[in-house]
This record gives sequence, structure tokens and C-alpha cells, in this order.
Amino acid sequence: MSTTIKAYAATAAKSPLTPFEYTPGPLGVEQVDIDVTYCGICHSDLSMIDNEWGMSAYPFVGGHEVVGKVASIGSQVKHLKVGQTVGLGWQSGSCMTCHQCMSGDHNLCPNSQATIIQRHGGFATQVRAEGAFVIPLPEKVDPAKAGPLFCGGITVFNPIVQFGVKPTDSVGVIGIGGLGHMALKFLHAWGCDVVAFTSSDSKRDEALQLGANSVVNSRNSAEMQKLAGSFNFIVSTVNVKLDWESYINALAPKGRLHTVGAIAEPVSLTAFPLIMGQRSFSGSPIGAPATIQTMLDFAARHDIAPTTEFFPMSKINDAFDHLKSGKARYRIVLENDIK
Amino acid sequence: MSTTIKAYAATAAKSPLTPFEYTPGPLGVEQVDIDVTYCGICHSDLSMIDNEWGMSAYPFVGGHEVVGKVASIGSQVKHLKVGQTVGLGWQSGSCMTCHQCMSGDHNLCPNSQATIIQRHGGFATQVRAEGAFVIPLPEKVDPAKAGPLFCGGITVFNPIVQFGVKPTDSVGVIGIGGLGHMALKFLHAWGCDVVAFTSSDSKRDEALQLGANSVVNSRNSAEMQKLAGSFNFIVSTVNVKLDWESYINALAPKGRLHTVGAIAEPVSLTAFPLIMGQRSFSGSPIGAPATIQTMLDFAARHDIAPTTEFFPMSKINDAFDHLKSGKARYRIVLENDIK
Repeated sequence: MSTTIKAYAATAAKSPLTPFEYTPGPLGVEQVDIDVTYCGICHSDLSMIDNEWGMSAYPFVGGHEVVGKVASIGSQVKHLKVGQTVGLGWQSGSCMTCHQCMSGDHNLCPNSQATIIQRHGGFATQVRAEGAFVIPLPEKVDPAKAGPLFCGGITVFNPIVQFGVKPTDSVGVIGIGGLGHMALKFLHAWGCDVVAFTSSDSKRDEALQLGANSVVNSRNSAEMQKLAGSFNFIVSTVNVKLDWESYINALAPKGRLHTVGAIAEPVSLTAFPLIMGQRSFSGSPIGAPATIQTMLDFAARHDIAPTTEFFPMSKINDAFDHLKSGKARYRIVLENDIK
Repeated sequence: MSTTIKAYAATAAKSPLTPFEYTPGPLGVEQVDIDVTYCGICHSDLSMIDNEWGMSAYPFVGGHEVVGKVASIGSQVKHLKVGQTVGLGWQSGSCMTCHQCMSGDHNLCPNSQATIIQRHGGFATQVRAEGAFVIPLPEKVDPAKAGPLFCGGITVFNPIVQFGVKPTDSVGVIGIGGLGHMALKFLHAWGCDVVAFTSSDSKRDEALQLGANSVVNSRNSAEMQKLAGSFNFIVSTVNVKLDWESYINALAPKGRLHTVGAIAEPVSLTAFPLIMGQRSFSGSPIGAPATIQTMLDFAARHDIAPTTEFFPMSKINDAFDHLKSGKARYRIVLENDIK
């Protein structure tokens, strides 16, 4: 039996998305097919559509913030049942046996399989993944809003876990957008003193509502100077050049400035303030399946959901136009209406 | 009673060192005077003599790798006795009550007092310090060779402790000199797989003897490329610009590139390899008194001593000429012969 999957695909770089059908072939013994109910839109979907990273193949089907129901499972998949509500994020497979995978760091596997690279993603009736990367959704998590947790959410949640951010810490979030707004919600629930850094005064009130204890205009150098030595952890969610030195100086001794935004331009850091304050600069990608499960449990317990706007999947091009306008507050989710 | 201290001082930037006498004034209740027996020479003594950092005052007395005997103690000093063999490093005081000091991170105190900044150091018959920064020398540590542990040694030992380097880790040491040679000895005893990075083939055999399991010529890009993804921790002890990307790429997932060398030129890092491998770049200065004590105990147990060359203190200018020649193997110690 081979299902025909209906999807929306880009036929070339920067093309609009048009209906596209494909047949996925036989299901592997450790694989799962998911009937897509909702799929978030991530900025990296746009980067892949536009072939910004030079590795897109066309027709290209994006979508890697999937929530849906298990349609079928391979014979070796024991932890899922057909009909169960699940999620799938950026990563859909890994080698499962390298040192990273065996250590629980599947997200750092050198042979990681991404959901939308050299395979088709979740802007479709169905998407396929290795079973280990298909995560059951806790009952208390709203399936309609959960999609963005699986890429944007885990990207900001993972470093909180990896670097041992503590509820007693002073933390900062740079950029209040798709990722940053989730970072504010997580860090607020984590118990931290949370400062939102934004260059947009219009986001001040929203940032406070999202969980920030205070908001700092990062373009105000006097305000930045006052914060010198304050922060145990600052996460940057933007991918533009920043005044890195001002953020390094804002770190407390032993503090960490962490980027999840893949800035193209090299980051220039002066050694002296890093040395004198024993400070670190670092980066990280998404998170491993176990950390995703931990995030979902935490989100359920604290009633954390991404702030979302909905489009029917049939209006996917309108949804991308909205993303490109920079006006999304804060994450777009497509409701599947493909017939 | 006020002792006259005989010292060697620079009278101006880059001047030779000449005999100089001063009277330290009354001893504070928490202070200690040390009769200097040995004093190591650190490159930062030269930087201060030459006023490289623009904060030297003349006459300037350097010397902050001191080993000697307690000459007198203030009334509130309870942990030391007159006549006891002790050491003193870069730091001679701190506020003792800020968050850093109260957390055991005296080395990160914003009001840290350095032994040779705005006060006179150990190229002298006596040096004074706050009692908490005067560390008893374990019996099994050779006083003649111990001086360099108190600045160069703790500078490379401290990050091993701070960042939880494990005996199962693969580690690298960049630069096999005054600091690097001690890093090799410590990391070898720590149980790690140790690689020495050097641009000098002449140091290959010595690096192996010092504790490296293998030696890599950092100028050989093919050799560097082969090491991609290998290291959990690399410590750089040099203060010149490096090919940072090649070292970041040599890090295993979750690896850390750490500098204790205060490179003047900004360090340029590409975000993508940091993000994909969850890697960190960081720096640190010396170490706190408790960490110095831990280092001394570890050095005693593993029979670790700096590799030293000796000069009488009366030949201090010859000793500095030897330092400047770059031929010191690996750390110079002055034996006090001031009458």
C-alpha cells in the first residue's frame, strides 16, 4: 500500500508554493507516518524555499513544526500507537548509534536527518519520520498551538537545560520574535529575573505580558551601560550583527552569551572582558528528543503555549507573505485543510 | 616597628631594574608580611615594567610568584604562623564580602587587589598581602620550584576545575611555554588524552616528555583538519592571533575553546560551527585562593612542579633578558640573595 501525499511545494527558489503530490514508498520498520493536523511556519522554511543555504532541492516541501496523528507505524516502533497525537520538529532522524546519539545528544549527531532537507516536510497531508523523533503530545498541551514548540520552542528551551540556567539567575533575551517570545515564557516560568532586549519600543508592553520583568532598548547605550555585570545568561535569537561587546559587558562574572541565531557575519569578541569575568560565548541548535519531551512536560505544567496566528494551509502563500512582512505575532500555524 | 624592604625597581617604563628601598608602614590586622625566598618571573611583570597596560607607577617593583616564609601576621590572621612556608600569586587582596568573594570566586571580585598594581611585589626581601591570599605550601611541594604555580600554574589549572574537565576528555594545549608546559603536566595527571599544539617543531619531544600524548603542528592545516570534532576542551595559552576557526572545528560537540592569553586583537568567530556543535568560547583569569590550595594538593600528590631555570635575584636584569630572548625553558625563578 502506498499513499499519495498531497503537499504544497516550491518548484524553484523563491517560487510561490503550489499543489504537489508524491508517493513516499514503503514505510521502514522504525518509521512513522503522521497525518498532519497543524504545521507551524519557521523562518528556516523560507530560507530553504529561497535556497539561501544552497542545499535546497525542488520541488521542495517545507514544514517542520508538525502536530498530527500517527497514521501508521513500522513493525519496530513500540512507543507509539496509531491515532496518537504527536509532534515532529526540525530533526526527523539520526544514526542512533554514534557517541552523541548514545549520549542523548541526537541533535548533535553528525548524520542527523532534517525533516525538510533531501526529503519532504509537513506542508502536506502526511509526513514521515524515524519513530524516535516523533514525540507524543501531553494531554494538557493544545495541539493547535504546539507546532512551534518543536523547532522554535526547543531551540530556546534547550540551552536553558544544557547550560544549567537556574531559577535564581538573571537572564536576558535578545529579539522578541518567533523564538524570543517563547524564551520569555519559558524563562519566566523557570523562575528567573528576565529582561527583554529589543530595538523596537513597540514591543515593550508585549514583552512584559510575555513574561519579562523589564524591557531594555538595546540601542540605548546608557541603558546598556547601567546593566554591566548583571546577567548570568543572555540568549540571542536574532541573526543580525549585534554590539557584542555591550552584551558581554552586561554579563555577570561566569556569565554566558548564547546565540541560537546563525549570524552570517563573524562575531568579533575582545578576549580581555571574557578573561576578566570568566565569561563564555556559545551557540546551539534545536534539542534532542528527550529534551523535547521534557520541554513539553514543562509547557503542560506551566500552561505555556506559543502565541500564534492561524492560516488555513490552502492559504500558505498568504501565510508566507505575512511572515515576510515581519508582522507575525509571534508564530504562524497552518491548519490543514488539504482535501 | 617598621622594616625597610630592599627591592629591585624599574624607575621608568622599560628601565633596567635597580636597587630600591621602601618602608611598608604598619601591618594591617588581616595582613601578612612574607620574607621572600624565591620569586618567579611572569610575562606580566615585563608588561608592567614596560607600562604596556598604561597603569604602572614608578618606582615599580614586580614579582607575583612568591614563595617565602611568614615574617609577621596581623592580629586577625588565624590560619598562618610566623615561619610557615607560603606562596603568594597575582592577587594579594579582595573585598571579601561581595557576591563573588562570598561565593569563593575571589579572583572575580571587582575590587581585587593585584600584588604588583599600585603596590610593591616580590622582587624584594619582603612582600605584604592580605592573609587570605597567602597560601600555605604543602610539605611535598618543592619551595624552590613552586613560585610559578601561583600565577602561571593556577591560570591553567583554574579552567580545568571551573569547566569540569574530566579524566575521560580529549584536551588540547595551545602554546608550549611558561603556562602551556604546566597545562600539559596538569592535564596528563588529570588522566586526559592530551594533545600539544605548537608551531615550533623543536618543542615536539619536550611536549611529549611534559605529558602530551601527541603533538600537532598547528601550522599544518591538513593535520588540523584531521582533528575535526575531536576535543572536549582546548586551552590557549598564547596571546597572539590564532586561526580560531580551525580550533573551533577541532572541538567535539559540546567542546570548549578557552583562552587564558589576553589577545589584543578581537577574536573573530563564525556562529554556525558554534551553533551546530553546541560549542563554547571563553576566557578566565588566575584562580581563587581555595582553587590554588586545591592545585597545590594535586601538584603534591602527583609530584607536579614547573620546569624552572634559576637566577640569583641580584642578576634580575639578566633573568629578564633571558625571558625576552624567548629561550626560557619554561619558567624563570629568582633565588633571593638580597643582603
